[in-house]
Amino acid sequence: MGNRNFREMLENQWSRGNFVCVGLDSEYSKIPEFARLDNAANTIVGFNRAIVEATKDKVCAYKPNIAFYEAYGFLGLNALFRTLADIRNLAPDIPIILDAKRADIGNTNAGYVQAAFEFLRADAITVHPYLGAEALQPFLARAEKGIIVLCRTSNPGAGEFQDLDVSPTLKLYEYIALKVAKDWNQKGNCGVVVGATYPEELRKVRQIVGDMPILITGVGFQTKSK
Amino acid sequence: MGNRNFREMLENQWSRGNFVCVGLDSEYSKIPEFARLDNAANTIVGFNRAIVEATKDKVCAYKPNIAFYEAYGFLGLNALFRTLADIRNLAPDIPIILDAKRADIGNTNAGYVQAAFEFLRADAITVHPYLGAEALQPFLARAEKGIIVLCRTSNPGAGEFQDLDVSPTLKLYEYIALKVAKDWNQKGNCGVVVGATYPEELRKVRQIVGDMPILITGVGFQTKSK
Repeated sequence: MGNRNFREMLENQWSRGNFVCVGLDSEYSKIPEFARLDNAANTIVGFNRAIVEATKDKVCAYKPNIAFYEAYGFLGLNALFRTLADIRNLAPDIPIILDAKRADIGNTNAGYVQAAFEFLRADAITVHPYLGAEALQPFLARAEKGIIVLCRTSNPGAGEFQDLDVSPTLKLYEYIALKVAKDWNQKGNCGVVVGATYPEELRKVRQIVGDMPILITGVGFQTKSK
Repeated sequence: MGNRNFREMLENQWSRGNFVCVGLDSEYSKIPEFARLDNAANTIVGFNRAIVEATKDKVCAYKPNIAFYEAYGFLGLNALFRTLADIRNLAPDIPIILDAKRADIGNTNAGYVQAAFEFLRADAITVHPYLGAEALQPFLARAEKGIIVLCRTSNPGAGEFQDLDVSPTLKLYEYIALKVAKDWNQKGNCGVVVGATYPEELRKVRQIVGDMPILITGVGFQTKSK
């Protein structure tokens, strides 16, 4: 496990033709009756395990969103911890992106880094850009992990701030993509988030970031539900 | 407990002359030997309890930053949960701000709302603005809670994006303050975060937001350590 490197694991999956990242945002109330076990944590863990077993030859990453687990308190954290262990056991070559959208000032981020990378042992994490690179150093310093920065998100109201013009030629999300690609990515460990719901913005970000990984969110249920 | 309303609790403390918010960002490694109990969770809970007992007649809010607790995994969440219960018991008139800096798309924020307001029973939460008001609706809809939006943060590199000019007269942090004050605050439950380390920016934000609560961060150790 000491040898897990997010970018290498990701490229290894890409080389096998695997480009899909599977979200594991399991809501207990939506898990069908027949899949329910003796308690909620076991149900969520079992549901996630079935997804991993069914998809592990076809995907490049798993991405649990921690909000769905935090919602259940102690029980949810227990379920997340066990799901991550299951993924490492069942699919040891597939990196785990913790979709946590964290970001605080520097010394506080050290706590989030410990939570995500030491306690939960995720291979990558999503982060908010708003506090800047200086604040995010505890994340960015981790060369073996993936630091995936929110750029143009998939939600309908994403443009409220992200589309503001911050120069004659760049909107805020484009400026952030540029900074991440040119300044923040010193260790080659960065990526950006762009919603599949915005193909034109996705095209622009790809032009800016070159071959940096883009986590393209909002494919599937989220898209259809709008 | 059903009657806890963040803004009313805060104004009640203000009317008593209490304007200081006390952070509870307890790092186990920095708690002195003589204050250590039989295990780390008990030590953190006991340390926090002593702070609350010593300060409860002088403060307007308590603000634990969840990162310091998440860092310790299950144990840390346990310590946070118990500390919040202690505050409600020892200082039932003092609101609790969960400094969690959350923000995701709408349906995911519902999970964070459940974690912060139902499981942990916080009275207020800090949030990132980047995804916009539409995404933050699950927070903003909670009239009785405080939704405190990051505006101009206290860290040295805060200006990387926050100081970008987004109009001939407004920087991004000013524009966000304006949107929160004019559009987001329909239920009178919003506040903004501005670092004490930037007094000029603080002055500008106060002019923009009127009497909206401003959480002024970075007083004390953080300031001295720079």
